[in-house]
Amino acid sequence: MLRRLVLVLVLMAPIGLRAESGLDAWLRYAPLEEPVARRYRDALPAVVVTLGTEAPVQSAKSELLRGIRGMLNRNLRAAARIPSEPAIVIGTLAQIRQAAPQLAAAGNIEGDGFWLRTVRSNGVRSIVIAGDTDRGVLYGTFALLRKIALGESINDLEQKEMPYSPIRWVNHWENLDGSIERGYGGRSIFWENGKAREDLSRVSDYGRLLASLGINGTSINNVNADARVLSSEFLPQIVRVADALRPWGVKVALSVDFGSPRTVGGLTTFDPLDPGVIAYWKNKADEIYRAVPDLGGFVLKADSEGRVGPSAVGRTHADAANVVARALKPHGGVFFYRGFVYDNRMDWRNPKNDRARAADDNFRNLDGKFDDNVFIQIKNGPIDYQVREPASPLFGTLEKTNQVIELQITQEYMGQGRHTVFLVPMWKEVLDFDMRARPGMTTPVKALVAGKVFGRPSGGMIGVSNVGLDESWFGNHMSQANLYGFGRLAWNPDLSSKQIIDEWTRLTFGDDPKVVETVTSMQLSSWRTYENYTGPLGLQTLTDITGNHYGLAVEASERNGWGQWHFADEKGVGMERSVARGTGFAGQYRPDVAKVYESVETTPDDLLLFFHHVPYTQKLRSGKTVIQYIYDSHYEGAETVAKYANDWRALKGRIDDRRFAEVLAQLQYQAGQAIVWRDGVATYFFKMSGIADAKNRIGNYPGRLEAESAALKDYAVRAVTPPEGASGEKAIDCPVARCEATFKYSGESGWRDVTVRYFDVNSGAAKYRVSVNGQLVAEWTATDRVPTRRIDSASSARHIIEGIQLRAGDEILIEGIPEGSETAGLDYIEIVPTP
Amino acid sequence: MLRRLVLVLVLMAPIGLRAESGLDAWLRYAPLEEPVARRYRDALPAVVVTLGTEAPVQSAKSELLRGIRGMLNRNLRAAARIPSEPAIVIGTLAQIRQAAPQLAAAGNIEGDGFWLRTVRSNGVRSIVIAGDTDRGVLYGTFALLRKIALGESINDLEQKEMPYSPIRWVNHWENLDGSIERGYGGRSIFWENGKAREDLSRVSDYGRLLASLGINGTSINNVNADARVLSSEFLPQIVRVADALRPWGVKVALSVDFGSPRTVGGLTTFDPLDPGVIAYWKNKADEIYRAVPDLGGFVLKADSEGRVGPSAVGRTHADAANVVARALKPHGGVFFYRGFVYDNRMDWRNPKNDRARAADDNFRNLDGKFDDNVFIQIKNGPIDYQVREPASPLFGTLEKTNQVIELQITQEYMGQGRHTVFLVPMWKEVLDFDMRARPGMTTPVKALVAGKVFGRPSGGMIGVSNVGLDESWFGNHMSQANLYGFGRLAWNPDLSSKQIIDEWTRLTFGDDPKVVETVTSMQLSSWRTYENYTGPLGLQTLTDITGNHYGLAVEASERNGWGQWHFADEKGVGMERSVARGTGFAGQYRPDVAKVYESVETTPDDLLLFFHHVPYTQKLRSGKTVIQYIYDSHYEGAETVAKYANDWRALKGRIDDRRFAEVLAQLQYQAGQAIVWRDGVATYFFKMSGIADAKNRIGNYPGRLEAESAALKDYAVRAVTPPEGASGEKAIDCPVARCEATFKYSGESGWRDVTVRYFDVNSGAAKYRVSVNGQLVAEWTATDRVPTRRIDSASSARHIIEGIQLRAGDEILIEGIPEGSETAGLDYIEIVPTP
Repeated sequence: MLRRLVLVLVLMAPIGLRAESGLDAWLRYAPLEEPVARRYRDALPAVVVTLGTEAPVQSAKSELLRGIRGMLNRNLRAAARIPSEPAIVIGTLAQIRQAAPQLAAAGNIEGDGFWLRTVRSNGVRSIVIAGDTDRGVLYGTFALLRKIALGESINDLEQKEMPYSPIRWVNHWENLDGSIERGYGGRSIFWENGKAREDLSRVSDYGRLLASLGINGTSINNVNADARVLSSEFLPQIVRVADALRPWGVKVALSVDFGSPRTVGGLTTFDPLDPGVIAYWKNKADEIYRAVPDLGGFVLKADSEGRVGPSAVGRTHADAANVVARALKPHGGVFFYRGFVYDNRMDWRNPKNDRARAADDNFRNLDGKFDDNVFIQIKNGPIDYQVREPASPLFGTLEKTNQVIELQITQEYMGQGRHTVFLVPMWKEVLDFDMRARPGMTTPVKALVAGKVFGRPSGGMIGVSNVGLDESWFGNHMSQANLYGFGRLAWNPDLSSKQIIDEWTRLTFGDDPKVVETVTSMQLSSWRTYENYTGPLGLQTLTDITGNHYGLAVEASERNGWGQWHFADEKGVGMERSVARGTGFAGQYRPDVAKVYESVETTPDDLLLFFHHVPYTQKLRSGKTVIQYIYDSHYEGAETVAKYANDWRALKGRIDDRRFAEVLAQLQYQAGQAIVWRDGVATYFFKMSGIADAKNRIGNYPGRLEAESAALKDYAVRAVTPPEGASGEKAIDCPVARCEATFKYSGESGWRDVTVRYFDVNSGAAKYRVSVNGQLVAEWTATDRVPTRRIDSASSARHIIEGIQLRAGDEILIEGIPEGSETAGLDYIEIVPTP
Repeated sequence: MLRRLVLVLVLMAPIGLRAESGLDAWLRYAPLEEPVARRYRDALPAVVVTLGTEAPVQSAKSELLRGIRGMLNRNLRAAARIPSEPAIVIGTLAQIRQAAPQLAAAGNIEGDGFWLRTVRSNGVRSIVIAGDTDRGVLYGTFALLRKIALGESINDLEQKEMPYSPIRWVNHWENLDGSIERGYGGRSIFWENGKAREDLSRVSDYGRLLASLGINGTSINNVNADARVLSSEFLPQIVRVADALRPWGVKVALSVDFGSPRTVGGLTTFDPLDPGVIAYWKNKADEIYRAVPDLGGFVLKADSEGRVGPSAVGRTHADAANVVARALKPHGGVFFYRGFVYDNRMDWRNPKNDRARAADDNFRNLDGKFDDNVFIQIKNGPIDYQVREPASPLFGTLEKTNQVIELQITQEYMGQGRHTVFLVPMWKEVLDFDMRARPGMTTPVKALVAGKVFGRPSGGMIGVSNVGLDESWFGNHMSQANLYGFGRLAWNPDLSSKQIIDEWTRLTFGDDPKVVETVTSMQLSSWRTYENYTGPLGLQTLTDITGNHYGLAVEASERNGWGQWHFADEKGVGMERSVARGTGFAGQYRPDVAKVYESVETTPDDLLLFFHHVPYTQKLRSGKTVIQYIYDSHYEGAETVAKYANDWRALKGRIDDRRFAEVLAQLQYQAGQAIVWRDGVATYFFKMSGIADAKNRIGNYPGRLEAESAALKDYAVRAVTPPEGASGEKAIDCPVARCEATFKYSGESGWRDVTVRYFDVNSGAAKYRVSVNGQLVAEWTATDRVPTRRIDSASSARHIIEGIQLRAGDEILIEGIPEGSETAGLDYIEIVPTP
């Protein structure tokens, strides 16, 4: 009964009843405090006039009504003609000049830009939201709403904004069956069982989020493309998705399979110079544009990670790109050709082999060979979304070819939404990095990808978003900041990280100063924190790179074909990429940059081990040795995450209960994982280097009792692979229906916290019960779903039992009851005084 | 993913993550603020010793562990023997004297009482929780936990409490199919499809709530009893429920059908003097006690509202009661014989007829004829849970018969959980009312029902609880205060309403002073408020008493056979119950009380119309006329509820989001219903009396536009029955698939709130859409479930659209789209300036 009442009431009285699921992200339009709301109510006209009838302009109107209703609890009056009273006038410059010349200023607006103005005419004060395009009108409306939500004055508006570059897109690696490659927020919002989802309301919700940031295009299927996407039968599905996004000014694009002419086109080849293949692409483009006239274009991943490409038929990337681009050209479509091309079967024994070289090696000689509607889509770094990479040299190499930068919003190597990592500071480092590509001017990556340095006609930024059906979109409310930050940077890369996160926090969690301070300082430090415990000094994310890209596996990047090794041995660590002594990668940069990276002395500490193999005793600029820095940074990282969780806990009551609990759970989980990384990496390098930690922390864990040393009944001891996945390299698991491990406490009497480190794999739901001298003190079921079926660092989980009164001689019994193929694994317990 | 994380975390870290569903009611054990928690951690021993192994004592131990874990985040150490360190020792006095004589004081504990003591012995300080019975031990444990939750000192405990009377029971009117007669919190926690529910965890949760109040017995099926409850096949179901309640010291009892010997016993009669019938009851009792040795006893409703009773076979209530009581006697069982016996086919034209007389008329002459284990179960008032009744005269009449008072916790005539009505102040008025039953002493009802006045061996209080499966138990979090208050009063009727509600509020919603002040003042005034708009001056609840007992229907109590009329005519109102001029009911009281009620001059204003028929112009003690008081109280009542909702809204962020939203929804709904009552009752009496309201409010509703006066397309105008269910006595409903009503606004320009008064019946989900000049401003679906299928006062609902900018001439269009048998009815709209 109450539930029904609440549903009714949510419609009836917006104030105070907002359910904070995360779905509205930064567009919550939460009610403003009364005094603030009153100020805006006085400043805002009561009438909104929409001059155009186009879908994005109508969206602008409904968004304005929605926002004002939410924030100010007022329903504006919609009109189609200029009244004699104050009004908010929404339209393109051309429409305004025709309908109300007295409201139009001289001047113009470029691209998708907008112009907010307060105009006084005949004693009547109006607010004009103008764009050159429909999109610009919509973006201006979102900008006005954002100003109100942030408490900025709207009294005397005179604000004109133009986007930095025309291409501001997001990509999705969503498969037609509804799964998502590298997606961590649930199933696809677009696809289900090979078709567009019946209910596309989440796509529309998503379009709204994108429009609020000025994002104007999106690819809607995986770059590892299913050839079916180009079949005629599938076209109605694309039409449906495009229809859902069109009101938000977001064009759709498709990822295509280069083999399509053969696999679904009925031809015997996909050779881009073959007349049949040329006709195939032309006819296919014509067919699709008949159904979706405003399609953005195509995206292609070729000759990489098993995808077919021009090399199979002896052609170049330019041949491949141009045949498709020419088919799109008459329709205004663009073609993104991914620069992520590399050989994953390299011999690691050849000291010249280096995956980092691949992009530049592949495309340098083709510069100038691409048609004008082709864009080389280049990842920020030369490897693949690692926690720390230099900017890709290819940004500085291409002069006569369009390019876009590809950033990853989804956190593939960045904790996959289970860890909070705010990526804007990382992106900023790359975007602001001066590639020294043209003498006499600064040539930061942002300018290069926008085409500003070499006068290219277009360019911009693409983010791999991979949102899902979870109400949080990313599986973590904090991760929404990455989409927000990407969009804001794509619009204006000169914004600071601080400014972006401040906006995001206040829009997402409200204005409480303690909340703003806690969240912004956490987010701003989160990338460095994550780097600290997962791979500092340019080591890369020391994760399972041939597996789930999530858990700790230091050697996963050694002695394989993937071309990115860190070459840790007893003497030193790092991959030598200098020209003089290594792979020569450093030489792919323009000379001014190349010489910085060429020598150990000038390479920044943060990238030292990316560019150079050095002894563990190599001193950093701080005077600290490399090995000690590795130890210290891991401890510092783990401590910082623990602090995040505690800081967040202090926000209880200042944030809605639901998101408070969900973020707290996420941070506490992350704090536990950071300890696994800390212990595993530090132990690994201690074993490898034989150099002791100056603070003697490795192997000395106060109060830790290893499960393999407990008295075991039916539990079996097993070695964990890789060994750093478990404390002492061993764990226990239960091969029967129920097992017991008994630990003897030998410390002083008093209140103690007992942490149980167990393994929660994703293929079962084992139960654990903990008793002290027969008294049950905790029980739980291991139902988390991290991406592993094995007892390893990724499945390592912890359960903390706070405040247990212990006496020397007490027996702590853990019962494990396996379920499915989850074997109730245990690593250790840790007993520390209750704080 | 996050959901799983949260589940895991709830177990892992109790602090800050509590989901506030209402399920734990006042036993939330919410974490205390750190400084307070520290104080208790220092004061509490770390070890708890349980001396007994009986179920209630084991419950005491687990409850103590649970409470301390929740409030202090500490897991006490459980032991079975007294240690040499400080301990909390839990046991009966006898056990303590045997196991640890040094901890036992001289003295005894009566009944289910308890004794909390701090004892210093050999330099060790212990806390002793003792009882004479297992129950007492359990109650003492709850008392200690309550002290901690309320922030009271536990440093030097010396607190002994004995219950005021031995019988502290709750009844349930739950049918074996899972429905509940007069239950408003969902389906039965006991029954489902003719059996005990498979999952009885809610029964166990409930037992815990009852035990925390000292409630020691409960009947588990409807007094309108299903004879199957006594069949041998059903017995295992009773055993299961008894097993779930036994650990909480709560005995179960059964409501029985007096016709059972014939209907299920295979006999041809149920005559209580028939040897076969005598044997039937004996054998049946023996059989049941073999399965449930601690059964509490039976409850019987006989000769009332269609239930068979002794009158059918020419026997007395005493005959009937004693035959069953004698069967129970050897097992220690008791028998509750309900005093709620009356004839519902009275002739209203006979001025001597009066249902209020029934209980006293039926039982007066049988005083002394009942066995010692029989209790006459007497409702607080002579009618039936009306909003204001005098104490039943029968309390003062019986001298040689056991009695218990029956109070109604479920809010049958009190808004059915949809309205917040805290009943403790009402119960206190009855319990403290001096019946003047014995010369030379005060004889309040509480003393009479406890047997203290006439030296009866036993007595007490019974509450009709009717909780359900809703997580709030009652469909309204605020209604939990009634169960809490009943239990506290049953334990100690000398507690004040203020003390009870203060405890409840702090335990249920926390210690925030603004929360405590808001909730307690709302609850304490809520009964008077409800009375103000539903039936002041002893008029009774002016509801549909022959129907749902919920909505407004002033004349439902006129000209029928139910014996409770208010006889409103053009001259006056009220039922004359004096001896001199009326039914003689006043004469059933002892002389000192009777003479007060006999005359208009001495009868309290609050009961004036219960006892007397007076002209509308009769002056009250305040000098105000009866008719003006009726008008004023209704306006005051409606205003007060609107204030409740506003006051509650100001608690945003001080209470968990979920309960905040649910209670706000409830109060806003109640505020809307109070207006319906206000308008309906005031209009009724204005029409009847022809006397104008001194403030000229009746019929003058600022901004109200009747639906029947709007421009209608397909909507049909219909008279509403009873007429006070709709403004202007008419509504419109939609006989086709879609209808329109258009209202023309003619006021000044500006921000306006528009209230749409529509009808939300329980047999469909109609849609409504509201537009202003074609602009959609609101839409909703009518999915509430109030107990009516008709367009009437009970289904009258409102939707408020705040902040609409209107101009004279604007057209407000309401579209109604019926669904099921809900016809999208409309009463009116009301347009007022936005505050």
